[in-house]
Amino acid sequence: MLGKTRRLAVLAEGSFNATDAKTAVGVLRYRPEEVVAVIDSTRAGRSAQSCAGVGGEIPVVANLEGAAALEPNALLLGTAPQGGALPASWRAVVAEALMRGWDVLSGLHELLADDAELATLAAAKGCQILDVRRAPEGRPLAARRAADVDALVVLTVGSDCNTGKMTTALQLRDELRKKGANVAFVATGQTGIFVSDQGVAIDAVPSDFVAGVVEQLVCDAARDADIVLVEGQGALHHPAYSGVTMALLHGACPDSLVLCHQVGRTHLRISDAGPAPRIKSLSELVRDYERAASWMHPARVVGVSLNTMTVNEVEGRRAIEHAQQLTGLPVVDPIRSSADAIASVLLRRWEERRRDAASA
Amino acid sequence: MLGKTRRLAVLAEGSFNATDAKTAVGVLRYRPEEVVAVIDSTRAGRSAQSCAGVGGEIPVVANLEGAAALEPNALLLGTAPQGGALPASWRAVVAEALMRGWDVLSGLHELLADDAELATLAAAKGCQILDVRRAPEGRPLAARRAADVDALVVLTVGSDCNTGKMTTALQLRDELRKKGANVAFVATGQTGIFVSDQGVAIDAVPSDFVAGVVEQLVCDAARDADIVLVEGQGALHHPAYSGVTMALLHGACPDSLVLCHQVGRTHLRISDAGPAPRIKSLSELVRDYERAASWMHPARVVGVSLNTMTVNEVEGRRAIEHAQQLTGLPVVDPIRSSADAIASVLLRRWEERRRDAASA
Repeated sequence: MLGKTRRLAVLAEGSFNATDAKTAVGVLRYRPEEVVAVIDSTRAGRSAQSCAGVGGEIPVVANLEGAAALEPNALLLGTAPQGGALPASWRAVVAEALMRGWDVLSGLHELLADDAELATLAAAKGCQILDVRRAPEGRPLAARRAADVDALVVLTVGSDCNTGKMTTALQLRDELRKKGANVAFVATGQTGIFVSDQGVAIDAVPSDFVAGVVEQLVCDAARDADIVLVEGQGALHHPAYSGVTMALLHGACPDSLVLCHQVGRTHLRISDAGPAPRIKSLSELVRDYERAASWMHPARVVGVSLNTMTVNEVEGRRAIEHAQQLTGLPVVDPIRSSADAIASVLLRRWEERRRDAASA
Repeated sequence: MLGKTRRLAVLAEGSFNATDAKTAVGVLRYRPEEVVAVIDSTRAGRSAQSCAGVGGEIPVVANLEGAAALEPNALLLGTAPQGGALPASWRAVVAEALMRGWDVLSGLHELLADDAELATLAAAKGCQILDVRRAPEGRPLAARRAADVDALVVLTVGSDCNTGKMTTALQLRDELRKKGANVAFVATGQTGIFVSDQGVAIDAVPSDFVAGVVEQLVCDAARDADIVLVEGQGALHHPAYSGVTMALLHGACPDSLVLCHQVGRTHLRISDAGPAPRIKSLSELVRDYERAASWMHPARVVGVSLNTMTVNEVEGRRAIEHAQQLTGLPVVDPIRSSADAIASVLLRRWEERRRDAASA
């Protein structure tokens, strides 16, 4: 798959909108030139832009047959079901893609290349199955090595899952590059990997080695970059994912944190219909993340990234002002306006760091 | 292996002492009747008791040949190398055990049953390889369900790895049973599983599902018990393992925590020769564990379990008094004296809980 120009048909059946088709939206935002069609029979005939706010005129089609006319060479699974198993209804679609000679790119926990039926089909048709959530072979154990890198390490953290941690890191990357900074992005989840062709889906790594894997990624990235932006995962207060978040926080040893929140989200998204825990206030979240970081290496929350897409522009601006007053920090919506205010803070912190190192 | 009476030869080559051979010591302490010999050529001819303070007259032998006279039917790997790979020198020993028709019980991350050479050998000889660190198939996501069980959930937590979290939980189990309480023990690591024939080695579970696995174990155990004692893992301040500890804390939603520490340990044990982080004071540890728990469900540290084996009895008593003064909590060495003082607190908390539920 590497080296080949990707022409992707992105599967987002029944859920191609701005909030539910996380992987599809990420790939459309950052690598739209590789997408030839999105598959969602409930939205066929529309443009990607009109469904999800990204992707311009890329067409939404009803099925693989509809996508075939646009000559894709790979099917990308564009949504991530909770738990990460292959839904029964997708199996036939994946098999059909392989029958058509397309590669399959998957971020599911269930590894498609290990499925005998699908693997046999792929081999027969000469296509590849790429499971980006396959855990790496190594068993590294973290030892706070990332605290010693010269680069400024930045981690995005969240009030919940799916609040814009990857998008914020990527927008900061682009903003910092515009300012001439030498920046690396470290992907830690499937969409980040699809977007950047590197990284590890840390939620699939055996828990003993998550911090160690992150430490390696950060130390490697720091060799060639001045600022390392690490994609956050989960949330410190989420019942299912707080361990992943903690391992990331202690493996990466960031200097700076950027807190990501979606306006209007009041309760954590959990897998149950039961009562979900309330999300804490932004100032409590700042305090808790800084505390948890300090158990390994001191970090400061340097800004808040607010996803305001669920409200109109006036309400969005009001939410940003309110968050600024509450936290005393720069607050941005990196999609609706720009990540500039936080990028400037990071650049300043990097320059201070370099000056301190030079004078030491 | 289940159903069969185990006659174990326990491999602890070069490290059969009270601190380094964690699995061997755990099995010898809680299931000595199943051990026929310990293998350590550097201590051959001595008794288990004289080497590790457990196991009475069980002999230490030089090799498998030496153990064979005692007619074991299984080899248990009794030490856990950091990272969990099969050391090159052990491969021949495992192969020899299988050649002799013995089963092999392993707690390594590297799964021996997936090793083609060893699996073929086992099949040819009709023996079994039991990898207790194999991750379970399911992909449960935690949703704070363990907070709603009727039982009192107790988790042991530590200042570092290898400070007595499993032993404290098992001593509390035995003490509470003596007092007539209906207690369940939930094993979360390889030694705990060998000792109790149940549980999951959570450090091998993909990080997304650790809290979910723990939640299931606790909810299952709580159906038939009044007090559920959960074996702790790692430490909240350990660079490599804090994510495992966090997932356990938030998956189990304990009411009560017991903090385990080894007297004289001043720095965390990390995988490096580099400078290890200092261990915080007991009162700081109490505060941090209660804070981290509170992000999901409020918990109190109700006692401190001090492992005083590295000092003499007088110094041990002094360390216990000092810890009592510092924390204001009951402090015990559950091996040297008894876990009674903490067991009594737990029983009282369980009775209060039952009274509150009845009057509600």
